[in-house]
This record gives sequence, structure tokens and C-alpha cells, in this order.
Amino acid sequence: VTLPRIGVFDSGVGGLTVLKAMAEQVPAHYLYFGDTARLPYGTKSAETVARYSIAATHFLESQSIDLLVIACNSATALALPSVRQAAAVPVVGVVQPGATMAAEVSKTRAAIVVATEATVSSHAYRDALQQRGLEAYEKACPLFVPLVEEGWIDHPVTEQVARIYLGEAMAQASDKADVLVLACTHYPLIAPLLRRITPAHVQIVDSAESTARAVKERFRINGGAPARLFSTRGGDSPSASGNMEHRTFRFYVTDSVDKFKRLATRFLGRQVDHVEHVDLGG
Amino acid sequence: VTLPRIGVFDSGVGGLTVLKAMAEQVPAHYLYFGDTARLPYGTKSAETVARYSIAATHFLESQSIDLLVIACNSATALALPSVRQAAAVPVVGVVQPGATMAAEVSKTRAAIVVATEATVSSHAYRDALQQRGLEAYEKACPLFVPLVEEGWIDHPVTEQVARIYLGEAMAQASDKADVLVLACTHYPLIAPLLRRITPAHVQIVDSAESTARAVKERFRINGGAPARLFSTRGGDSPSASGNMEHRTFRFYVTDSVDKFKRLATRFLGRQVDHVEHVDLGG
Repeated sequence: VTLPRIGVFDSGVGGLTVLKAMAEQVPAHYLYFGDTARLPYGTKSAETVARYSIAATHFLESQSIDLLVIACNSATALALPSVRQAAAVPVVGVVQPGATMAAEVSKTRAAIVVATEATVSSHAYRDALQQRGLEAYEKACPLFVPLVEEGWIDHPVTEQVARIYLGEAMAQASDKADVLVLACTHYPLIAPLLRRITPAHVQIVDSAESTARAVKERFRINGGAPARLFSTRGGDSPSASGNMEHRTFRFYVTDSVDKFKRLATRFLGRQVDHVEHVDLGG
Repeated sequence: VTLPRIGVFDSGVGGLTVLKAMAEQVPAHYLYFGDTARLPYGTKSAETVARYSIAATHFLESQSIDLLVIACNSATALALPSVRQAAAVPVVGVVQPGATMAAEVSKTRAAIVVATEATVSSHAYRDALQQRGLEAYEKACPLFVPLVEEGWIDHPVTEQVARIYLGEAMAQASDKADVLVLACTHYPLIAPLLRRITPAHVQIVDSAESTARAVKERFRINGGAPARLFSTRGGDSPSASGNMEHRTFRFYVTDSVDKFKRLATRFLGRQVDHVEHVDLGG
């Protein structure tokens, strides 16, 4: 049995939080694509994000993958149907898993969703939560991503910004919500700070954990051992399913390799090797 | 005599501060290109920014221009030689005008330069200031652009962030600098806030004013009436040189037209019409 090859795609480094959570739960070879020359997606239009996402999908498929995870809320919210149509492999996004987990933990049937401007404008979470019987209060938090990328993870400015954004969201929800969905893959890095300033009865759900669980679940349903879902592949060295030792990680980025390595260390909490530059002609 | 056609290019909306200053000083038809599908440039590598800048140059030249102004510090700092090589028309960047103005006003011969990460890494301002006998203290301020785009122009968070960045820059300069160069076209919008927290003996110089002055000067040197520098062009309606009434403004963007209109209003202080979407294949 060979390990499956999972393609993971994000506009930049944020999807590494999803990769990290998946790698802890699902033994596989991981191929991560970060579209760093065109990031961020969260401030851009649906048409542009769909165009970029399809290019990323084609690139990862050219590296032969068995499953594609869109580890970016903006890309999932704006382009999941386009990517599914363009892809030959199954595609998992981050919105449905997040909504599912929120629905599981909410007693008041109301959730606050913090996300990028693009994700909020798409109302993808509102729709997904409504399907599960939850009211959604969506709040765009455009400064969170630059604050995380500046490295101000536990910083008074970030706390002040978070108090403003969350204060507005809670006022809008009139204290009905008992779940806070971190609907951007950058936000898990400031989860401890958000936890500190969020009322104790509000549970925090993030894309990384919920998507990793959904991918694991997909493998379980499809036959117990993760690798069994997938065709065997000649090129891979044989290894026992679940053997974490033989997993490989490959990273592909459209902008500077060095900058990606630097930021990726912050997200993954370990050194990142095997980063290649690719030019998608953008 | 017909008015000259000036192409103005930026990664997004920041260059509108330069456009606004130029339009007040130089009668011309203005064609503005904002590469909003691929912004920001200020966090990206020299190779990527050069590639994008050359594509923008070719697009504006296809609309027939007489002069190209790179109204973006990151693009000027990282790609001016590449753009000059690719362009058939004369090219003006924002770095040299800013450095010239800083050199004129400085008595202590030392300047603080606040800019994006990419502009600081290029040391384009350090080199330009050193050529004019000034010491440069460069400080990357990656949160200023997102704060301006969030509309927090006069906001306590922006002030707190500015105090941190400027405090670090001034400590580095050990109070020697008497000029603060706003080396990013977004920063003029927070100039009043920066003025408030900067010591009174420090003068503030920005790209918009200095570049407008350089463009005006270029016309003056080349023969008095601005239009005389340029060939007459059949397509334009004839109008007296200096007649502000007959100027036209055209805007081209690679992402959403609506979002550009919204942000452009904040930058120009007036409604923006004639915005077209263009796809450079990115």
C-alpha cells in the first residue's frame, strides 16, 4: 500500500495551518502550492480568485495528486464550484467542514464568522450555516492577515484591533452567538489572543482542525486505511499505511522561495525544505 | 496644440495620490493603470514586480502615451531599469524626485525613509539619498497600507502603529534626521496623523508632491508649454495648452471595477468614472 498524495492549495502561507493539522491526522505525501506572487485573495473579486484557483489546481494535478484540499477560505468561498469543475480529482474545501463543526458545538444556533472581505462578501458561511439551522453573523477583519504576517501574534495592537472587530460582530449578534468561526487560515495563529478576549461561553472553531477532521473522515468512510481509497502508484516507495516516517512534503510557490521559508517556519513551527519556485505566467 | 497623454501606473490605488498631485500641476490626458488583481507589490520579490511592471508598461503603451510615470515606490525601487528598457516612451519614477526633495530640505543631511518591505529591501532610497550626500535610515512599515485601505486614516490603532514604527526608525537614526520621506504612495493619506506624532523640526516629504513637481519640471525644461514636448496626435480634440477643462481621465484595473471606484473616491476625494477592467492574463 502506498500513501496517498494530497495537494493543498492556498494563496500563500495561511493554508499551512491546515496542512499542519492534516499532517497530524492523515498519513500522506503532501504537495503544497502557495500562490505568493498573487496573494492575497481575500481582497479580490470572485472572477480573479476563480481564475487563480483553477491555475493552481491544474498545476497540482500536473504533479499527480489523489485529492485536492483548498486550504484557503477565500478561494473556497469564491471558487469551489469552478475548481470542482476544473479538477479531475476529488476536491475538499474549508467552508463546509468549518460550518459542520460550528453546528455541532452551538447550542444557541447562532455563530459569528470572522473572515476576509472576499469570504464575507460571498456569504458562503452564512449559506452553509443556514443549511445546518444556524444564524450567521459575518464580520470582515481585513487587518488580521497583515498583523499575522507582520508577526504581531501576541501584540497590544493586534488585541486592540481584535477588540474592535469582535466588539462590532458581537453587537451585531446581540450576544446570541455561542460559536466563533475563524474562517481564514491565518487566524489560528491569533487564536490564543482571540480566546482571551472572547466571552468564555463562546467556543472557537477553526478551518485547520475542522478540515483535517473532514479529510480524515473521508479516508475512514472510504475503507479504513487511508491509502486504500487511492490507486497504487508506481513511483512511490512502498510504505505501511500510517507510517509517518515515509511521508514527504513538497512546497511550490509563485514568488520568492526565501520569504516563503521564513514565513512558513512561523506557521508550521519547524524548518521547511523542498520549496520550489513555479511560474504560472501571471 | 494637443495635451500630452501621461500613463500612470501603480499596483492599485496608492498611485492616485501621485495622479492627484500631477493633475493639479500638469495639464494632460491621464491614463491610470492599477494592477489590482496582483497587488500588493510591496511584499513581493524583485523578479515578480519587474514582470508585472513590464506588463503594465506594455498595456499603457498600447493605449498610446507620451510619458510613463511609475506611481509606485515598490515598482520604481525594484523595476525602474527593467521598465525603462521595455518602454518606448520616457519613464519617470517616484524615488529620484523624493530623494531630490529630501536633499533640498535637509540641513542635518540625514533622512528617515518609511516604505514597504520591498522598497526598503531594495535600498533604492538609501542609494538615491547617498548620491545627494544624505544618510538614510530606512524602516519597513507593512501595516500602513492595510490600515489606509481599511479606511482607518485617523484612528487610534493607526496612531499606535505609527508610534511604534516611527519610534523604531528615530531610535535607529539617533535623532539625526530632519526629514521623513513617505516612500509609499499610500502614506500621504496618513500624513496629517504622521505630522502630529513627528517632532516639529522634522519635515515630511512625499512621493506625490515631489513626483508631480518633477513631471512639471520636465515639461518646463522641454520648452515652456507642456504639450510642446510631445508630437501632436490626430485622435485628440484640440485644446489650448493648460486648459484644465479638456483634460480626460481614464482608469484601467485588473480586478473589480467597483472596488476600485470605492477606494479611488477615498484617494482622489471625488467620484471616479471611466474605469475599465483589463485582463493581462495573470
